[in-house]
Amino acid sequence: MEPSKVPLAGDADHLIDSTDPHHPANHICTLCRNFYNLGWVTGTGGGTSIRRGPHIFIAPSGVQKELLQPSDIFVLDYASRSYLRKRPDLKPSACTPLFLAAFDRGAGCCIHTHSQWAVLVTLLVERDASKSGAKIDDKYFEIEKIEQIKGIPKGRGNAGMMGYYDKLRVPIIENTAHEEDLTSSLEAAMGRYPDTFAVLVRRHGVYVWGDDVQKAKTQAERSISPSIPPD
Amino acid sequence: MEPSKVPLAGDADHLIDSTDPHHPANHICTLCRNFYNLGWVTGTGGGTSIRRGPHIFIAPSGVQKELLQPSDIFVLDYASRSYLRKRPDLKPSACTPLFLAAFDRGAGCCIHTHSQWAVLVTLLVERDASKSGAKIDDKYFEIEKIEQIKGIPKGRGNAGMMGYYDKLRVPIIENTAHEEDLTSSLEAAMGRYPDTFAVLVRRHGVYVWGDDVQKAKTQAERSISPSIPPD
Amino acid sequence: MEPSKVPLAGDADHLIDSTDPHHPANHICTLCRNFYNLGWVTGTGGGTSIRRGPHIFIAPSGVQKELLQPSDIFVLDYASRSYLRKRPDLKPSACTPLFLAAFDRGAGCCIHTHSQWAVLVTLLVERDASKSGAKIDDKYFEIEKIEQIKGIPKGRGNAGMMGYYDKLRVPIIENTAHEEDLTSSLEAAMGRYPDTFAVLVRRHGVYVWGDDVQKAKTQAERSISPSIPPD
Amino acid sequence: MEPSKVPLAGDADHLIDSTDPHHPANHICTLCRNFYNLGWVTGTGGGTSIRRGPHIFIAPSGVQKELLQPSDIFVLDYASRSYLRKRPDLKPSACTPLFLAAFDRGAGCCIHTHSQWAVLVTLLVERDASKSGAKIDDKYFEIEKIEQIKGIPKGRGNAGMMGYYDKLRVPIIENTAHEEDLTSSLEAAMGRYPDTFAVLVRRHGVYVWGDDVQKAKTQAERSISPSIPPD
Repeated sequence: MEPSKVPLAGDADHLIDSTDPHHPANHICTLCRNFYNLGWVTGTGGGTSIRRGPHIFIAPSGVQKELLQPSDIFVLDYASRSYLRKRPDLKPSACTPLFLAAFDRGAGCCIHTHSQWAVLVTLLVERDASKSGAKIDDKYFEIEKIEQIKGIPKGRGNAGMMGYYDKLRVPIIENTAHEEDLTSSLEAAMGRYPDTFAVLVRRHGVYVWGDDVQKAKTQAERSISPSIPPD
Repeated sequence: MEPSKVPLAGDADHLIDSTDPHHPANHICTLCRNFYNLGWVTGTGGGTSIRRGPHIFIAPSGVQKELLQPSDIFVLDYASRSYLRKRPDLKPSACTPLFLAAFDRGAGCCIHTHSQWAVLVTLLVERDASKSGAKIDDKYFEIEKIEQIKGIPKGRGNAGMMGYYDKLRVPIIENTAHEEDLTSSLEAAMGRYPDTFAVLVRRHGVYVWGDDVQKAKTQAERSISPSIPPD
Repeated sequence: MEPSKVPLAGDADHLIDSTDPHHPANHICTLCRNFYNLGWVTGTGGGTSIRRGPHIFIAPSGVQKELLQPSDIFVLDYASRSYLRKRPDLKPSACTPLFLAAFDRGAGCCIHTHSQWAVLVTLLVERDASKSGAKIDDKYFEIEKIEQIKGIPKGRGNAGMMGYYDKLRVPIIENTAHEEDLTSSLEAAMGRYPDTFAVLVRRHGVYVWGDDVQKAKTQAERSISPSIPPD
Repeated sequence: MEPSKVPLAGDADHLIDSTDPHHPANHICTLCRNFYNLGWVTGTGGGTSIRRGPHIFIAPSGVQKELLQPSDIFVLDYASRSYLRKRPDLKPSACTPLFLAAFDRGAGCCIHTHSQWAVLVTLLVERDASKSGAKIDDKYFEIEKIEQIKGIPKGRGNAGMMGYYDKLRVPIIENTAHEEDLTSSLEAAMGRYPDTFAVLVRRHGVYVWGDDVQKAKTQAERSISPSIPPD
């Protein structure tokens, strides 16, 4: 909880220095504080990344998300994958390659949480799979006839939102020892479910993305908030 | 989450421009922020409408309710059903015809939420109906001998509040693909249950109304807050 | 939610006019706001009363507890049972005779909530009584070997707090159609359980009292907060 | 809730008088307020202690933790175990010998809560032990394959954090009538589980410690927040 005393690379600080509350460096801090209060990101877990034009803004790894400051934020050049601003005393989020996979699909914001509801859903699907003798691989959480899915877009190739009678499938991938090792299975799930906006990670949490911050946040609330009781 | 840059129809802005926190344009914003914190309206879902004299104040559709600003509010002339103030960049709530059905019954405020407790009640009633072979049509949630119902009025023709030994029935209607298509079944339920102050919508949420904001809010808390455990 | 426009009996306003946050007229408002945030008092339900010397401070009936203002508070002369300050437009809490029963036993503060945990406990005890064929009359909630009871005093005649191996019994009384009609059974339960600091009311809530505000609040949190899972 | 009117030992007040929010006397108050809002410390239960160099900062016993003020804090000289600053009107936390056991193992901060999740875990383990005929002595809560354990250090002799496939064991000790009597069994559990950062106390709560405040808080959130559903 100690504020950082580390001097920053001065010439890159203009990238995170703004009084606009919607500037990504400020917005990530506000969102993480809100997610902490919702119980989605606790004990340094979880994170959020925002793309603005050529730049990707990323929170550091292993910090208390509710205390994040704009000066903690890393800035990555999306095209070259090189850091324009980095804190010498911190590491960028281990989720960075997973956030990039979402940005590669056109997302403007990606949210990763350890929400207990997301974890619980993966445990319930796992339990049902174990009863039926099925493998957990290629499992998904499926829900239909619930008003909340009307806030979720139909998918990349289709205009408009899902309907009440549509069926929402969110793929579940197996967790790995190291977060960055999730990248290939996350990308594979994105390939199998080209319309999905989210991927659940077994006994871990969920990645949710959207065209912009508002849509990513709305889709996160629609899919992992306690307002959707499991069917 | 971006603040609107769209210029407003200037001559109608006096309808929503007030420093009084109880002016409907301000009050709707405060209520929606509170309902968000209660988990009743998340991911752009839910909404609130207030009648003041000849005017109906309505929140827009598809926006994050906790970030609502007075400048987002639509104003409808109740008698002519024509908009006195509308945002060219937004649509009025899809609940508008349902709110109007409540105002036609004399309500001063109508609240629509996606409360998980409301959805859960409809799922429990559905499960019991399915066990007994009954149809879900014309189902209702029924409760008696619970202190909370003493905060609920007896109904349109009767003075005073329900008693502890009275039986409260809240009708449940089937959900539809489009929210506006709920109107006829909502009105039918209002017809079958002339004393009701609320209608549950299966796998969707609840509409609650009252003579004024305080009564609608009190009746919403009495019927959908977690303080009433299902019997 | 409209602030009152009713003129007050000016000569009694000094009884509720103080800048001290611990003055009872201010303290009741703070406590009720906190209890609302805890979900203990919603939809105008519940209340709090404080005794200071010869005066009893009481919230009005039927108001939203989280919006209570010091100017709403009634002041009763304890000895003569006559109101020194009353709002002509409001009624004092229907719990007043029950609060007085607690003050008659030496309490300095009495809290009444509709906590869902309190209601749930009475439903569980009722279910067990119905299984065993026993009557609900003279039922009680009993708990032992739980750290939280160490914050609860042994009772009127005994110094000190309960121990971990002590058994806490909180009597449950039957609810009545009118709150004031609970008075005689509350007093009877106080007689049967002379050491109790609380009485549960079936399908209604709980009354908790203590020597002063801090003790009543501590005992309420110890007995009805979600921090004590039913054994 | 009355602010203290007791004069303090003036020559020791410099130990708790700081405008730095990370000074232990201030930090304990902030942490306890946060823990109250999380439901971890209610009704005067629970507490936090911080070591800074030669000094141990401790909250008093029997006070409402969310209202703690820096002037309430006791300061102990770690080497001599003598109080450098004490409030004549209060007693130091009954957890003090338990906090010291953590500091003796190198901790910089120790948190004690009555979290319902911690209590629930001890009840579940007890139930399972009773079914299998095993004794509760030397019981532990065990969890593996859950992302949250990656925020927990491997233990005193090992660098780095636990992995997803590691098994986390948190010992459970039997509760005692007096909190200070837990010290010897807490120390025995620390001896049996040299890598543990936490000890659960049956039907009571949990002690969690870490190298500094941030680590103790992170480890508490990782192990007792509702974000970890029991496996």
